Amino acid sequence: MKILTRKEILNNAIQLVQRAVSIKNPLPILAGIKFETRENQVLLTATDLDIGIRCSFPAEVIMQGTTVLPARYICELVKKLPDLPVIIESDPASGSATVQYGQSETRINGYPPEEFPELPLPEGIYNFTLPGELLKEIIRQVIFATGTDENRPVFMGVLFEINGNELQVVATDTYRLAWRRVILENCGETAINLIIPGKTLNELSRIIGSNEQIEVTVTKNQILFVYGNVWLISRLIEGSFPKYKQVIPQNHILRARLKTRELLDATERASLLAREKSPVIKLTIGENKLVVSAYSEAGRVHEELDVYQEGEALQIAFNAHYLGDVLKVIGSEEIIIELTGPLSPGIIKPVGDNEYLSLLLPVRLREE
Amino acid sequence: MKILTRKEILNNAIQLVQRAVSIKNPLPILAGIKFETRENQVLLTATDLDIGIRCSFPAEVIMQGTTVLPARYICELVKKLPDLPVIIESDPASGSATVQYGQSETRINGYPPEEFPELPLPEGIYNFTLPGELLKEIIRQVIFATGTDENRPVFMGVLFEINGNELQVVATDTYRLAWRRVILENCGETAINLIIPGKTLNELSRIIGSNEQIEVTVTKNQILFVYGNVWLISRLIEGSFPKYKQVIPQNHILRARLKTRELLDATERASLLAREKSPVIKLTIGENKLVVSAYSEAGRVHEELDVYQEGEALQIAFNAHYLGDVLKVIGSEEIIIELTGPLSPGIIKPVGDNEYLSLLLPVRLREE
Repeated sequence: MKILTRKEILNNAIQLVQRAVSIKNPLPILAGIKFETRENQVLLTATDLDIGIRCSFPAEVIMQGTTVLPARYICELVKKLPDLPVIIESDPASGSATVQYGQSETRINGYPPEEFPELPLPEGIYNFTLPGELLKEIIRQVIFATGTDENRPVFMGVLFEINGNELQVVATDTYRLAWRRVILENCGETAINLIIPGKTLNELSRIIGSNEQIEVTVTKNQILFVYGNVWLISRLIEGSFPKYKQVIPQNHILRARLKTRELLDATERASLLAREKSPVIKLTIGENKLVVSAYSEAGRVHEELDVYQEGEALQIAFNAHYLGDVLKVIGSEEIIIELTGPLSPGIIKPVGDNEYLSLLLPVRLREE
Repeated sequence: MKILTRKEILNNAIQLVQRAVSIKNPLPILAGIKFETRENQVLLTATDLDIGIRCSFPAEVIMQGTTVLPARYICELVKKLPDLPVIIESDPASGSATVQYGQSETRINGYPPEEFPELPLPEGIYNFTLPGELLKEIIRQVIFATGTDENRPVFMGVLFEINGNELQVVATDTYRLAWRRVILENCGETAINLIIPGKTLNELSRIIGSNEQIEVTVTKNQILFVYGNVWLISRLIEGSFPKYKQVIPQNHILRARLKTRELLDATERASLLAREKSPVIKLTIGENKLVVSAYSEAGRVHEELDVYQEGEALQIAFNAHYLGDVLKVIGSEEIIIELTGPLSPGIIKPVGDNEYLSLLLPVRLREE
């Protein structure tokens, strides 16, 4: 392989695919990035076997071929290259590649390309497209509610429930739940449930541009996201997602409207003085006031916020971090809190928007 | 104590003094910040017994007094307060203080103020002033050469050698040395040597503004830096600094002039492929070329730079990180490298500036 390209083009492609490189994997070649020529294009691929990222860039292909170079060296080297034409030439005999720039050259020892796992693009059984900005927003609004327990993989994923042109996206760690609904355009008529690993969505969110249109292709056990010259392919999580609809209360005895920012700031201050191991804050709603309170050995907080209240007065306690997580992503100036009792899940949603909600299990208050 | 002030004023003062707070110290009160009233001012003090930082800010003092509050809580709380008037009121009976803002209040448990160590401002035996920008530059240009071995405290400090109106600043870890000279204005006629802890200079550099004039007061075993409403006081390191002048070569057999940026970039790329544990790079100078080379199991680098050379051809090897450290702070577009032999210290200095130099011990090359 011998290619001629420019530093910036090469660097952008490498920085993108290197996100899928696996450094700790027992298979050493997964620490590499595969370079493959395709007429006047170069294809870069990296994978940790869960996620694969592929990216193509234009180059003058002087000699066709394939090489696999350690991501660690090629990434850092290319990042630090001067802004000049760059030639990369691989030597199939030694497995090394030479990077030439200006009067200088660097030789990097590579891996045998034939050992690099194949990353076939899946044959789709279902397709839809979503604007990049919307996909990023959906991910941001639910991803925080995924679990981290590797023994319960279903909760480490995000449910994409497609029914006709309706997509419902749900994540839960069993203590809280985030739900978002969008209407799909240009989609087939089908009903499928996918559980996409949270890690995949995190990576996807980092690499996609807001102005791109993302094409999604679903297969039995894989999902492929494509935009421009970038492909991200991921396994899906097997298993069935819990029946989440039955845990969302359908009515309430108290409804309070208030400013998102005010509750977030009060929650963050209160969580400073909540107990470190279980940062519980108490919300007491009554007479159009919401009192946020918390205490620990270090001191106590008492904050009063104005709210617009309908229904009964009520006291409930939440994990302060969980409450903060929702308020950070809800994206509306004002929120609605709906409660059915001190020991029933609370609902938080944006004012005037029925397409998003977050549910929080309360914490049982100990007597003070 | 009861004071009324504004969030921003309070926050700036707290963020400044909290740099001296000691969290890991066995003396718990050193995790606190002391508040003391002084007519219409409040004085904040924090110290880890090595360094003390004091800062005053204007406030309406409603009741005189003193309180010591845990830095961890008061810092984070004040940072997150709304931009409103803030009242802090201490309760001498319980040792706690209440922070009031808007409709809300937070009570923080404090420490007994009488346990907070005194931080008397030293009586000076010698004074001088330096512009903040110059002091920051001096620190940046030498601090990287200090050592980290706690058994050799002298090398963890920076020598300030004052002789009449000449200040020479030197740091060395015995593998490299950085030297800077400045002419003092408005100083007394004296000859003293001080060894200031590197940690003190690092903190000082972070807190001083570039446009401030810094007043320095020296005593037998302490040094005080004052600017505006901020005082930083530090112990000095005892012991005698090595006689550094005799290790700086007075002549050379090779002198090369080259672009700082080009050598820094080549050094950084080469250090990627140098051995991790001893990142050695080789400089080969001859025929108005400088070749930077390095190799390891991962590959090899060969970079050619144009230089303007006087004297013999020569090959020398340095620790790549040490060379990079100097090139990052030297602050001139072009540098001079002066060498006396492959096993003698190399000198690097800015072109047209005799007030700064850095010395690097070479690494003995193994046969390849």
